[in-house]
Amino acid sequence: MFRGRLNHVILAAARYPHRLNELHTAQAAQKIVPLTDSLVQNLQKIVGDKNVSEAMAIREQHGKDESYHACAPPQVVAFAESVEQVSGVAKLCNEHRVPLVPFGSGTGLEGGINAIRGGICLDLMKMDKILAVHPEDFDCQVESGVTRKTLNNYLRDTGLWFPIDPGADASLCGMCSTSASGTNAVRYGTMRENVMNMEVVLADGRVIHTAGKDRRTKKTSAGYNLTNLFVGSEGTLGIITKATLRLHGIPEASVSAVCSFESIQEAVDTTVQVLQCGIPMARIEFLDEVSIDACNKYSKMNMKVAPSLFLEFSGSPKSLDDNAEIVGEIVKMNGGSDFKWATDVDERNLLWKTRHDILYACMALRPGCKPYSTDVCVPVSNLPRVVVESKKYIDEAGVVGPMVGHVGDGNFHVFFPVDQSNPDEVKTVHDVSVKMALLAQELNGTCTGEHGIGLGKRELLIREIGESGIEVMQQLKQTLDPNGILNPGKVFF
Amino acid sequence: MFRGRLNHVILAAARYPHRLNELHTAQAAQKIVPLTDSLVQNLQKIVGDKNVSEAMAIREQHGKDESYHACAPPQVVAFAESVEQVSGVAKLCNEHRVPLVPFGSGTGLEGGINAIRGGICLDLMKMDKILAVHPEDFDCQVESGVTRKTLNNYLRDTGLWFPIDPGADASLCGMCSTSASGTNAVRYGTMRENVMNMEVVLADGRVIHTAGKDRRTKKTSAGYNLTNLFVGSEGTLGIITKATLRLHGIPEASVSAVCSFESIQEAVDTTVQVLQCGIPMARIEFLDEVSIDACNKYSKMNMKVAPSLFLEFSGSPKSLDDNAEIVGEIVKMNGGSDFKWATDVDERNLLWKTRHDILYACMALRPGCKPYSTDVCVPVSNLPRVVVESKKYIDEAGVVGPMVGHVGDGNFHVFFPVDQSNPDEVKTVHDVSVKMALLAQELNGTCTGEHGIGLGKRELLIREIGESGIEVMQQLKQTLDPNGILNPGKVFF
Repeated sequence: MFRGRLNHVILAAARYPHRLNELHTAQAAQKIVPLTDSLVQNLQKIVGDKNVSEAMAIREQHGKDESYHACAPPQVVAFAESVEQVSGVAKLCNEHRVPLVPFGSGTGLEGGINAIRGGICLDLMKMDKILAVHPEDFDCQVESGVTRKTLNNYLRDTGLWFPIDPGADASLCGMCSTSASGTNAVRYGTMRENVMNMEVVLADGRVIHTAGKDRRTKKTSAGYNLTNLFVGSEGTLGIITKATLRLHGIPEASVSAVCSFESIQEAVDTTVQVLQCGIPMARIEFLDEVSIDACNKYSKMNMKVAPSLFLEFSGSPKSLDDNAEIVGEIVKMNGGSDFKWATDVDERNLLWKTRHDILYACMALRPGCKPYSTDVCVPVSNLPRVVVESKKYIDEAGVVGPMVGHVGDGNFHVFFPVDQSNPDEVKTVHDVSVKMALLAQELNGTCTGEHGIGLGKRELLIREIGESGIEVMQQLKQTLDPNGILNPGKVFF
Repeated sequence: MFRGRLNHVILAAARYPHRLNELHTAQAAQKIVPLTDSLVQNLQKIVGDKNVSEAMAIREQHGKDESYHACAPPQVVAFAESVEQVSGVAKLCNEHRVPLVPFGSGTGLEGGINAIRGGICLDLMKMDKILAVHPEDFDCQVESGVTRKTLNNYLRDTGLWFPIDPGADASLCGMCSTSASGTNAVRYGTMRENVMNMEVVLADGRVIHTAGKDRRTKKTSAGYNLTNLFVGSEGTLGIITKATLRLHGIPEASVSAVCSFESIQEAVDTTVQVLQCGIPMARIEFLDEVSIDACNKYSKMNMKVAPSLFLEFSGSPKSLDDNAEIVGEIVKMNGGSDFKWATDVDERNLLWKTRHDILYACMALRPGCKPYSTDVCVPVSNLPRVVVESKKYIDEAGVVGPMVGHVGDGNFHVFFPVDQSNPDEVKTVHDVSVKMALLAQELNGTCTGEHGIGLGKRELLIREIGESGIEVMQQLKQTLDPNGILNPGKVFF
């Protein structure tokens, strides 16, 4: 597979973007074969009649995520209620060489669940049990359909929480699959650091526990790290049916603040200096003036329309004061405004809800548009250059491109609202996005810090990892999914 | 390979320990074939004449680590000076189906580098350059032969350090290979959380960068997580020639203390309660009375011979006082002594040097003996039971077994000094060690938190991960090393 003709086209496409059309034509040539009645009947036997749907509305709902990628409906949607059913469906698909696309909350941003080669979409949201919480060990186990908000509501009285928050109320196993992160990653890490074990159904129906059944230790050196092989594999290596997650104590005290700057450069310089001083920030988020404007309109806020930082400090009350004082001085040195504090819980929640709703706020700038998102990440010292240059690209192209980011991790996004029906506009935005990713890659960075590769960044992945590294990834895919049934066309072509 | 006869024997052996002899007999039947002159000449061409040795002293020095496992010398030792040489040697070995064992500092504890199937040992310690330090980004890049102490000396004036400390002055790429951790893991995580990228030579000589060349971002969602597939793979999937590591700011202030308890139960209960209160400990180490006695003798200390905790607090001076006060109260509630503080740098360094030298201190209890180490890890709530039961096993068997541990992670060790020439003694110790590992596995734990599988825990790995999980690991091995040349006989049989 990985030394064949298609691969050459892909590598060529990565080096010479104008040849991408050749690639897309090659892909489109792969026809979707109609499913036989007997296959659908077998599917019904496995998950039950009521759990299989061929209705167009259901299929369309399962054929797209929150991105601009065109809806690609699966041929049939099945709803699984147990790991045995997931295993049965995998076996069936593997035997008949039918594409199988796992589906969670559908809140991805790179077309990860679009069924571009048809097949069966397996919706996992009915498997929604919180199986165990061990407050004394700071861990829990959930089924694939439990979302992060559901878990955190459930944990409310324990003093614990699961801090990874990609914005959307995503399913936790979907978050494993994408290696999600979000505003709290600067403090708590990403999914990679917070998943201890997973139950995974392989392409041939085998069920494994990546760290062994029922194991939930803080560390292990026992064999290969299968957990982190499946985290971030975007449904292409296996279907995650259970996850054992680390929990964290809710900090004793937290305060949040907003401050604004004259320029993007100053806001980003402030971030870099705060990190270099070793201040343990709970959150440090950047929003440019376009994003602030979008937030003001969508969330009915009244913030100064200027490049801004949203900050959060947490810990013991004493340490909060110390850290806030130092950060306040750095902000001032960079010409920033005084902090506008959000101290009580309601005010703080409103601030972060505003930040979390930003994707929707950006889309509301141009009703009817869908988000084309970029998601680059660079070493923090290269962040000012990438952010400032990116802003130039956006302005030069004359498109609407609000910038927001988890700048504490060197990670930021542009959520371009695009009119999908206008190919010129999509192309213009795509070109800006690719230029940003190429610049990030030039500066020791990655084309995706947290959204994943999905459909949108397959060429960029090749450029990023290099030919030999991609070969290894494709060998692993080939080994675990020799018939290529699992979420085909994602991550790789 | 993974459905063959040997595999059945292995699985049977895991279930029925009395059948292990059958397995060991099957293994011994694999003969070591003499290397041809032309192969050795080719090896000399690749690395240079001066970098190849067949002298018995050199071979024996490279045939064992610090564990009790019998020396298994390679047939020849080569010293690599560049990644091109490593790649050349891999190609040569792959073509001629000759075992290839990468060698770092030789400080492992599970026989990971013993050349049980002969072949070429490739010593990587001449590749000892610190290639880059980016203080503003908190990262650095090192070649395979740089040790943790060398790196930390080099970093001295930057205010940064690399905190992972397995005790020995191990090579950093060796630490990647074993997924090492140590006393600071409770605060900074293990190697898994602190390696950002690696250059790896594959069995066929291909060179990959696990996250793409020159990339050093705090997070990424770009493709499969190859970095963490190779971290902890113990030289069986590839040879690590460079590592990009996360650095951390040296804390503003640190204080250490020792306190002693009437019983093991009380010391371990204290640990669990401290963690459950969410106190951010820098270190929390347990030593039983046998270990304290060993330390007093070896490091000329004068500590009370009783189960003890070594603690470290670090952060801002204010937070130290707060945290130390809360921990002091928990200690008192559990009947512990007042803290004996080590506040100045020299005193603190002496305390932690004592802790780090513990393996040697334990061995000095019985001069001439080698360490048989166990390394179990469980969820912290199960720690008191495992520690107390383990102590019973040791006492019942009538062996010397000092217990020490990174109890903040639920991880602890027994370093049994064993007389290798006495098979009965080795068997007695082995039986205790296996009983401890089985108990840990019963209680949601692992048979190794940080030492790895190596030669010593291959049966236990099968029991821990389960048949399907082991199959997947073996499939990955087969894919990346189809001729089985890389460190054969380690991790799996």
